[in-house]
Amino acid sequence: MSTELTPEPDFTDLDTYLDEAGADGYLVDADGSSSTQRYLSGFDAPDPFITIYTPEKTALLVSALEYGRAQTESRADSVSRLADYDYRSIVSEYNATTAKARVTAKWLQEHDVKCVVTPERFPLGPADTLREHDLSVSAEADDIVTTIRAQKTETEIEHIRDAQAANEAAMETAAKLINSATVDDEILYYDDEILTSERIKQAIETTLLQHECALDETIVACGSDAADPHNRGHGPIYADEPIVVDIFPRSKQTHYHADMTRTFLRGTPDETLINWFELTQNALTTAIDAIEPGVTGQYIHDIVCDIYENAGISTLRSDPTAETGFIHSTGHGVGLDVHELPRVSPDGGKLKPGHVITVEPGIYDPTVGGLRIENLVVVTDSGVENLTTYPITPLGT
Amino acid sequence: MSTELTPEPDFTDLDTYLDEAGADGYLVDADGSSSTQRYLSGFDAPDPFITIYTPEKTALLVSALEYGRAQTESRADSVSRLADYDYRSIVSEYNATTAKARVTAKWLQEHDVKCVVTPERFPLGPADTLREHDLSVSAEADDIVTTIRAQKTETEIEHIRDAQAANEAAMETAAKLINSATVDDEILYYDDEILTSERIKQAIETTLLQHECALDETIVACGSDAADPHNRGHGPIYADEPIVVDIFPRSKQTHYHADMTRTFLRGTPDETLINWFELTQNALTTAIDAIEPGVTGQYIHDIVCDIYENAGISTLRSDPTAETGFIHSTGHGVGLDVHELPRVSPDGGKLKPGHVITVEPGIYDPTVGGLRIENLVVVTDSGVENLTTYPITPLGT
Repeated sequence: MSTELTPEPDFTDLDTYLDEAGADGYLVDADGSSSTQRYLSGFDAPDPFITIYTPEKTALLVSALEYGRAQTESRADSVSRLADYDYRSIVSEYNATTAKARVTAKWLQEHDVKCVVTPERFPLGPADTLREHDLSVSAEADDIVTTIRAQKTETEIEHIRDAQAANEAAMETAAKLINSATVDDEILYYDDEILTSERIKQAIETTLLQHECALDETIVACGSDAADPHNRGHGPIYADEPIVVDIFPRSKQTHYHADMTRTFLRGTPDETLINWFELTQNALTTAIDAIEPGVTGQYIHDIVCDIYENAGISTLRSDPTAETGFIHSTGHGVGLDVHELPRVSPDGGKLKPGHVITVEPGIYDPTVGGLRIENLVVVTDSGVENLTTYPITPLGT
Repeated sequence: MSTELTPEPDFTDLDTYLDEAGADGYLVDADGSSSTQRYLSGFDAPDPFITIYTPEKTALLVSALEYGRAQTESRADSVSRLADYDYRSIVSEYNATTAKARVTAKWLQEHDVKCVVTPERFPLGPADTLREHDLSVSAEADDIVTTIRAQKTETEIEHIRDAQAANEAAMETAAKLINSATVDDEILYYDDEILTSERIKQAIETTLLQHECALDETIVACGSDAADPHNRGHGPIYADEPIVVDIFPRSKQTHYHADMTRTFLRGTPDETLINWFELTQNALTTAIDAIEPGVTGQYIHDIVCDIYENAGISTLRSDPTAETGFIHSTGHGVGLDVHELPRVSPDGGKLKPGHVITVEPGIYDPTVGGLRIENLVVVTDSGVENLTTYPITPLGT
């Protein structure tokens, strides 16, 4: 690997935050589908469990069912069971959710934790029960853990590379369907049936499954669908119109994501589309070349806006009410969440080594269609490394 | 349809609950992956949005991006935008999450809502901001909405039937792989490659995708894996050993689930397994035949325990520390969540028309293997209707 990143997350900023807030620890009550829970605990379980992070140690409180696995799989220094705290008899007096919170209070007191900070979306019911037991509980809205999560370790980047490899195989599946389709009366056919957005999405998702990745949604949007960046696409694929394919799979094993967009076109693109494609490819390359530690996400976004505006394309920067042109941000962080920090947008802060971000310029206009090209890159100690090897080929065949 | 159920959910119990609690409404702040949010709002969006239910009306507060779709797709009587409440300028003063909660406070006041009940896992940050703005916010731990959700309407049961049709197609895919495999040295082969749990799961998930269903996990567990009801299964499939296949897909469109288990075996089952299979099939049939409105989930669970215990099989009822025998509950509700109310377990309450439940007796012992048979049924006005048409075939080929 050319990147030189830390093998383990660095929680120094969290320690400083807790110290300044006068808090003993950071408390999470969530199941493994919560990225912050997964990140802090190093553990995945289908039902909510409790993690307390303190500068000295990380401890977990889990059900008996998860106890053995939590001891071997999590990153916790200590694991406790609800049953260790007389859980069953408390349940019979209260209900299960209140009982769990009462046990959490006892367990925190045993760990000398009296004052905790939590994620903004920590559950209210348990929080109120903890407060009734003289614990100080306050939700933070400062992105403290998500900011740490944004800087990936070498291991995390390997997980993202693996998801991206699956993503590229899926993109190739889509490209093959589109490129080997026959065209009849402006409509694409494959195996004598109309090639639809739905068929391509199913082929993409099947390929991802074969690579142990999953996703609930994929964008395969043609024609006027492609002109709306939020449209998932539906119905027949037409010749001479751009087809936006945006795939953002999650590894079933590691839960890390990848993200990539390509725009295809069967037939002959009109002059405007050819210009837009070249402009967008130029915006992509120029923006990526400018990425290095210390520059801001805003600066990278401005580069893309400059290129578009100089070519007469409207952007949300030049016109906040624009409905055509470049009408979204340049990119976003990718990790355990498919959209996470840092921002590559008007309010994007400084980029740091280990930030994995998308760069995805695009132009949209219902009278012409839409196109977008998106690569996934990682900020390195000295600049940037492209995590995307899938080619960008000119429109039209 | 033979069931005669209401076409719309009945919120009378929620109205009574709010009245008794002295609350004006039930407040939800969650994205569409929350089943309670989806149920009350009738809306799905990838980012959190706000729903207030009052006995008079249901209102939504959404981002500009979701505004048009919320007006046409949701069940709300009124839809507001964050932007209608000066959101942008509040964001510039605070951060996005605090700003959203401040707007929510204004919006609730405009709807004459001063006191709300929320789900137990309502987010703490917004709750505290609402409280600072003189709203009374309390989390309920009484399963009030999940209890209403347990009684399905005719439309909801149709959605579950659709998911079950996909489930049966997927089970057939698994059965064909197992039944057409060749056996060499006790190991199953398909297309000259070892037939593994992973290959069967991939085939199941591909079939589900073709039927517009998704799932993240499937159980295909053979031999000692099958003897642990929580084991997802891995590695080669062996002859003469039971193979537990448990599939619980979610419709990508409606988000309703189905759930079914079958146990297969290639070769010759030993005498114990044959007895266990007959016993389990008898427990399944007897339990389902006893289902009707008014009987309790506990009663159904006791029927299964009686049959097993009378045959000398240990259960958690006869021995709470049992590690072999029938070591889980008889079943659970199925709907927007794959595990929801009602319980068919030692603490299961009265069954009501519209309850969709699994009945899934099974026996587990690492020295023999494990087996389970699971059907999905709906409680009707007069009794029970089986939603499962997939056959139960004796072990061995």
